[in-house]
Amino acid sequence: MDRFFDRYNTYRSLIDTRLSTVIDRDKPVTMYEPARYVLSGGGKRVRPVLVMLACEAAGGDPRDAVDAGVAVEILHNFTLVHDDIMDRADTRRGRLTVHKKWDENIAILVGDELMGIAYKTLLNTEKGDMRALTRVFTDGVIEVCEGQSYDKEFELLPTVSEEEYMMMISKKTGWLVAISAEMGAIIGGADDARRAALVEYARCVGRAFQVQDDLLDVVADKEEFGKPIGGDIIEGKKTFLLVKALNRATGDDLALLEAVAMKTATQENLVARVTAIYEEYGVLDIAREKIAQDTDAAIRALEALEDNDGRQMLVWLAQMLLERKH
Amino acid sequence: MDRFFDRYNTYRSLIDTRLSTVIDRDKPVTMYEPARYVLSGGGKRVRPVLVMLACEAAGGDPRDAVDAGVAVEILHNFTLVHDDIMDRADTRRGRLTVHKKWDENIAILVGDELMGIAYKTLLNTEKGDMRALTRVFTDGVIEVCEGQSYDKEFELLPTVSEEEYMMMISKKTGWLVAISAEMGAIIGGADDARRAALVEYARCVGRAFQVQDDLLDVVADKEEFGKPIGGDIIEGKKTFLLVKALNRATGDDLALLEAVAMKTATQENLVARVTAIYEEYGVLDIAREKIAQDTDAAIRALEALEDNDGRQMLVWLAQMLLERKH
Repeated sequence: MDRFFDRYNTYRSLIDTRLSTVIDRDKPVTMYEPARYVLSGGGKRVRPVLVMLACEAAGGDPRDAVDAGVAVEILHNFTLVHDDIMDRADTRRGRLTVHKKWDENIAILVGDELMGIAYKTLLNTEKGDMRALTRVFTDGVIEVCEGQSYDKEFELLPTVSEEEYMMMISKKTGWLVAISAEMGAIIGGADDARRAALVEYARCVGRAFQVQDDLLDVVADKEEFGKPIGGDIIEGKKTFLLVKALNRATGDDLALLEAVAMKTATQENLVARVTAIYEEYGVLDIAREKIAQDTDAAIRALEALEDNDGRQMLVWLAQMLLERKH
Repeated sequence: MDRFFDRYNTYRSLIDTRLSTVIDRDKPVTMYEPARYVLSGGGKRVRPVLVMLACEAAGGDPRDAVDAGVAVEILHNFTLVHDDIMDRADTRRGRLTVHKKWDENIAILVGDELMGIAYKTLLNTEKGDMRALTRVFTDGVIEVCEGQSYDKEFELLPTVSEEEYMMMISKKTGWLVAISAEMGAIIGGADDARRAALVEYARCVGRAFQVQDDLLDVVADKEEFGKPIGGDIIEGKKTFLLVKALNRATGDDLALLEAVAMKTATQENLVARVTAIYEEYGVLDIAREKIAQDTDAAIRALEALEDNDGRQMLVWLAQMLLERKH
């Protein structure tokens, strides 16, 4: 496995190096100081590495996909800055959010500017059809905004259907993963079938990743997880688990889950009580099964591609994300 | 003149018709209802018509530039939605702003989405180099954000230099006018010299337009103006007039102007007092002279182009904007 990890880190370094150069101005200070702060916040850089790997799996040179990868990462960060304002979040990855460290006006404007910088970086890409690439990227912007909009709408409802939830989450978090693979495919010169296979891979991986996130919130080892267990329950976040349980539970159990969703539940022993309901209705096993299925489907989708280093890395990436503990 | 007005209105209709179709979805409702509201707010549509006219003046078919024109108009509207949040503005063109009619979260998200829709519309353009077009458009996004950022920084200062002010205003309001002409030039197939001439025209017109706006706030006929005279003075807005006066006045006059800029001046008779200072230091005449010079320079820049209907319309447009009373 070390070989894969090393390679992942090599690609991540290329991304981080390029990312550190995208802001080439210092003034206005109230714009570029917070913008630099956002982009230096770290992270696994899964999306940009995926752009590079998809390009490689399609037969291209992964270095041709660095700019597009960095563009997706900047786009992702723009959504975080604006979402944090909307969610009134004070911290992100252990650091103050932009609207907390500076103010809300600055956070709005820095987010807007990051979107401009994302496009500017994307436009440096030399391989692949620029119109197709920009179209896929732009659909990403639109879908991720729609996803956030649905998410905010759903926050006001006691329950949503599983279909509605999956639709929302595929837009809000899945879409940028999918366009990462699609952009890599375009730059790598994939034909339609291979491009579709890479998108299918990414959709499955994105879903598995999201459900895994929701599951870890409840079942993770406290030490390894690095944040309190049950945070989503306390926040009343509509996760895969909560939505599944809401659509299965009855009586007092349902009443409690609805109270969680509406953020009106009494906090005493809440995480334990809700986790017990999840166990009772088999929701944790459903999640585990869903993750395993999606990971399998992701790897199967790659069979449409020739075997090469890029494809092997994508197989490893899907498994690695499945096995992660935080 | 009727011929020109008719033609302007014909182009504007093409823009409005296309603009009414760019949103092809209804859900999420909290996204697309406010987005439609924004785009149906009317306006002179000067920027998109300029895209069409620049295309025509460069020898192209103005209808090829409708999508790019609509893209600029949507981009402009995105900046208004976010600026209105930052400026705590309750109304815009006589209607409630998005964050007032809905809420701030929705206004942030609708602005973001409009930027995505703007790019999506731009990408429908079939003539001209797509990479060059998207680059110019993206620089517009970045510059207009920087302009707003400088503007907010300058609000906290008692005075700014004339150079700083002109730099800020060229980014905040001039840039979108300049890219309108440049995008039209690209779509119309202009060579570098003609493209530069159209950009120069637009920069001059944009400046004249802005100074005229500032001047009308003080000298307009109350009936024709349609809003109270001296609104900028009451708001303490750093206009061309105020900045010029701040850099010329001394003693009590300077103290009053600084108080206006810091929004600490006593309101009694304020518009008359400040207007008297503007008269005393010749600032109104400087503004009139500046407008006349920039309009002349705009028209002169067009001499690099062959005479055709598009060029004649651009000459008329510059004069029309100069002569407007509101």
